Amino acid sequence: MNDLGAMTARIKWNEQGLVPAIAQDWQTGEVLMLAWMNRQALTLTLEEGRAIYWSRSRQALWRKGEESGHVQELKELRIDCDADTVLMKVVQVGGIACHTGRRSCFYRLAEEGRWRATDPVIKQPEDIYGNNT
Amino acid sequence: MNDLGAMTARIKWNEQGLVPAIAQDWQTGEVLMLAWMNRQALTLTLEEGRAIYWSRSRQALWRKGEESGHVQELKELRIDCDADTVLMKVVQVGGIACHTGRRSCFYRLAEEGRWRATDPVIKQPEDIYGNNT
Repeated sequence: MNDLGAMTARIKWNEQGLVPAIAQDWQTGEVLMLAWMNRQALTLTLEEGRAIYWSRSRQALWRKGEESGHVQELKELRIDCDADTVLMKVVQVGGIACHTGRRSCFYRLAEEGRWRATDPVIKQPEDIYGNNT
Repeated sequence: MNDLGAMTARIKWNEQGLVPAIAQDWQTGEVLMLAWMNRQALTLTLEEGRAIYWSRSRQALWRKGEESGHVQELKELRIDCDADTVLMKVVQVGGIACHTGRRSCFYRLAEEGRWRATDPVIKQPEDIYGNNT
């Protein structure tokens, strides 16, 4: 077993073979998003130095930025005490992590009994992903 | 339905009725831990202004700090674009989030093909939780 095999063998995958993975801006500390990784995704993330997730909706590897160009370059990767969560510090290429065109996916704040969208759309989704209709 | 009922109705709970909840130091931005919340835990967190999780191992509400005193006072709570992840900014009372006595649960760094513990134990677990043996 190589080093990555031994490292990923330490992870406590859930019943679907996944763990949550948090992406955090390596400079500002802003939490950008949470997505999921299976063993292959984590291995590729460490090998390639960019965030690669497992898309639960598509049931496929998701190389973050493959469509949008908003790649997440890996600066650092950690696991928690229970070895069931991944934390990455990343360079967010393009400054946009969210498919809505916002910097972070966590743009809705609990405030006065409702969810209020606090962060601006930097780029319209149709300008990120194209419009093929 | 009251405001909190309407707010929590917007969340996309998983098949176990849970969502991951990230706790982040409100000043430094350091990610402290990830745990899980059910609808009651999220409601109580918003009502009481402190992090209250659902312990999957104990299958019970977990008022963070109930044993250790390491309460997490809520400064801000957000949800992500898919409404299936919670992000909290907290004041970490005692400066220790991890049951190992470290500031953050994410103390193991991927480095040169292994997991290296990078962060010091601030307080020994037996001094946090007592030793009743």
